[in-house]
Amino acid sequence: MRILLVGAGGVGSAFVAIAARRDFFEHVVVADYDLARAERAVDAQGGDVRFRAARVDASSADSVAALVREHGCTHVMNAVDPRFVMPIFEGAFAAGADYLDMAMSLSRPHPEAPYSRVGVKLGDEQFAVAGEWEAAGRLALCGIGVEPGLSDVFARYAADHLFAEIDELGVRDGANLSVDGYEFAPSFSIWTTIEECLNPPVVWEADRADTDGGWFTTEPFSEPEVFDFPEGIGPVECVNVEHEEVLLMPRWVEAKRVTFKYGLGDEFIDVLKTLHKLGLDRTDKVRVGGVEVSPRDVVAACLPDPAGLGDRMRGKTCAGLWVSGTGKDGEPRSTYLYHVVDNEWSMREYGHQCVVWQTAVNPVVALELLANGTWTGSGVLGPEAFDARPFLDLLTAYGSPWGTQELPVS
Amino acid sequence: MRILLVGAGGVGSAFVAIAARRDFFEHVVVADYDLARAERAVDAQGGDVRFRAARVDASSADSVAALVREHGCTHVMNAVDPRFVMPIFEGAFAAGADYLDMAMSLSRPHPEAPYSRVGVKLGDEQFAVAGEWEAAGRLALCGIGVEPGLSDVFARYAADHLFAEIDELGVRDGANLSVDGYEFAPSFSIWTTIEECLNPPVVWEADRADTDGGWFTTEPFSEPEVFDFPEGIGPVECVNVEHEEVLLMPRWVEAKRVTFKYGLGDEFIDVLKTLHKLGLDRTDKVRVGGVEVSPRDVVAACLPDPAGLGDRMRGKTCAGLWVSGTGKDGEPRSTYLYHVVDNEWSMREYGHQCVVWQTAVNPVVALELLANGTWTGSGVLGPEAFDARPFLDLLTAYGSPWGTQELPVS
Repeated sequence: MRILLVGAGGVGSAFVAIAARRDFFEHVVVADYDLARAERAVDAQGGDVRFRAARVDASSADSVAALVREHGCTHVMNAVDPRFVMPIFEGAFAAGADYLDMAMSLSRPHPEAPYSRVGVKLGDEQFAVAGEWEAAGRLALCGIGVEPGLSDVFARYAADHLFAEIDELGVRDGANLSVDGYEFAPSFSIWTTIEECLNPPVVWEADRADTDGGWFTTEPFSEPEVFDFPEGIGPVECVNVEHEEVLLMPRWVEAKRVTFKYGLGDEFIDVLKTLHKLGLDRTDKVRVGGVEVSPRDVVAACLPDPAGLGDRMRGKTCAGLWVSGTGKDGEPRSTYLYHVVDNEWSMREYGHQCVVWQTAVNPVVALELLANGTWTGSGVLGPEAFDARPFLDLLTAYGSPWGTQELPVS
Repeated sequence: MRILLVGAGGVGSAFVAIAARRDFFEHVVVADYDLARAERAVDAQGGDVRFRAARVDASSADSVAALVREHGCTHVMNAVDPRFVMPIFEGAFAAGADYLDMAMSLSRPHPEAPYSRVGVKLGDEQFAVAGEWEAAGRLALCGIGVEPGLSDVFARYAADHLFAEIDELGVRDGANLSVDGYEFAPSFSIWTTIEECLNPPVVWEADRADTDGGWFTTEPFSEPEVFDFPEGIGPVECVNVEHEEVLLMPRWVEAKRVTFKYGLGDEFIDVLKTLHKLGLDRTDKVRVGGVEVSPRDVVAACLPDPAGLGDRMRGKTCAGLWVSGTGKDGEPRSTYLYHVVDNEWSMREYGHQCVVWQTAVNPVVALELLANGTWTGSGVLGPEAFDARPFLDLLTAYGSPWGTQELPVS
């Protein structure tokens, strides 16, 4: 296996650090728009000759395809923000490589009813060409970070091993992270967080399958709920946000309802609402003096790079899936399947903060399963299209176990 | 009198519309960095040959001086944001013209104790050369908008005609404006509002005259107070902000304490706090992709131009001064001197929204008093250095009366 990693930011660099401890691949080309950043990620592995830095323009399918061909890559690992999904996805296909990402092609709100009907959904552009990928025998494994990714693996696992019938697959993401010395410092890409949280949240219900395939939208920050996260994180206010799991899970796992709620907390919700109120979440360019910039890029440029905050961060991050329904024993069951990473541990073990480490470990596990033939497939597939148990076993073998917690049946 | 007006934005354009109805001057050169904007302000007066458009670079004293000389201007009227005070002030002096502005040279926080001690104060750079202006027989009339401006005239009036002894001169500014069709649309320059509200608020107390001349600072948004504004506006939450009156009034009017509180309201305070938390109030440039921009300029570019919102605005704006102390009769007295403008009136009468109209009318009144010799002086002076009664009488003659309201003595 020869991998082209596109993006040496926080998640890309953590990917390199995690992969460096494994031996399932021959070569990783670490490519970034900023060559120096790619070189830093490679240099951090202190002379591991399997890694090599390169420059890439992720907005150009040709640039991606050229690198694939030049280095004979078999797999393209997309680790940049979701604006660049389509050129990387297309570049991989053009050059005959398999493809993995951690976020899918972007949505566009319904032009007339943005807060009740879906428009262009997350991943629609990728699923539109699934037939071509399948016909070519190529695999696009989409949404294989932590969320989407591990959360989707949990859905497959719950359906296969824990539940006879599922009422709701509810992803719940929360943390108790703080960053010393900063009044406000998001622990993940603000660009992506704005995209996720200000787009109309999407929900799926089986009995609304007559309209738009069961998917519908709500107002941002809808259905607030306090979820009590495990391992000492405690209660966090969660709200609906747009996320890939809601688009992926219903395609492969039987359930009555699929939701995603993000534990943003009051302060972050207020910040996002204010950015939106002022139009600072916009991605189209505005003219400022003699130049043109995207306001959302300016917001990102004003905040510290989350990948560089690990030393100042404290706390844990939790990704998980709350499944309710009927257990294999025929009794009502409500179970939270989860994965917690303590920042102190990830910094000590890998030198990467917990949120990016937790995102990056999952595609490494998936690539190892593809390399050794445990996972096989073609077309445009989500993580829930594959057997969950070997994934969860290998994740545990990486030193990062997962857990379950039984919750009261409502 | 031949006037060079620098700035044809909201206030500058309203200045032109108000001046066009008066006959105390021969000529106004309406200058802007954007010539088309200057031309629009001139064209709006439909062929009044006393107005002529020109281009100016307000950041260059030479550019300002050259225009003064070219057109033989006797007075320079500064109507741009306070970043450009010093080059315009210096350009006027170099070319031998008198000078007026509506905001003074900018402050810089105290390097060690920003929230208790003053650093460089508003206007310090201008007062530093007061002797040169006086020696040259030139007048710089500073802070002659509505606040500072009319509020300072009220202070002079209260000291001369209403009070024997003044405990506090407290400027209180509030409004009940709303803008149809916008979730958030400030009615005044957001650049200036951020500058005023996020800088450490300054307060003056006579009995602290031992330290920094009686001036000291507090945390932003300090001493919140609900003030009940007249003419139907009602109660608005007001907080301390940095404003020129606190620097001007103690120089010419005897009082024990001088404060400025701005009726921002909860929502605006939250927006400003969030902008600060995210570093979006910064004026130094950040690199975004291939360009460099000032985040505060990006915020301004994302919001609608307040000068263009008049048709959608509803409500009234109030500027005023709450004076407490001992009346001429020896009894305790508490009086609010105020000036209210209804947006519906200013749009109907002048085609300009009430906040910019209220700012612009005062320098026109002042220039008329200078033109007819009622006001004379040299040096760097505030509005409270002049007789208040003719100013207030002429303001009333302009069709915009002021009022007083007696308040309970505490």
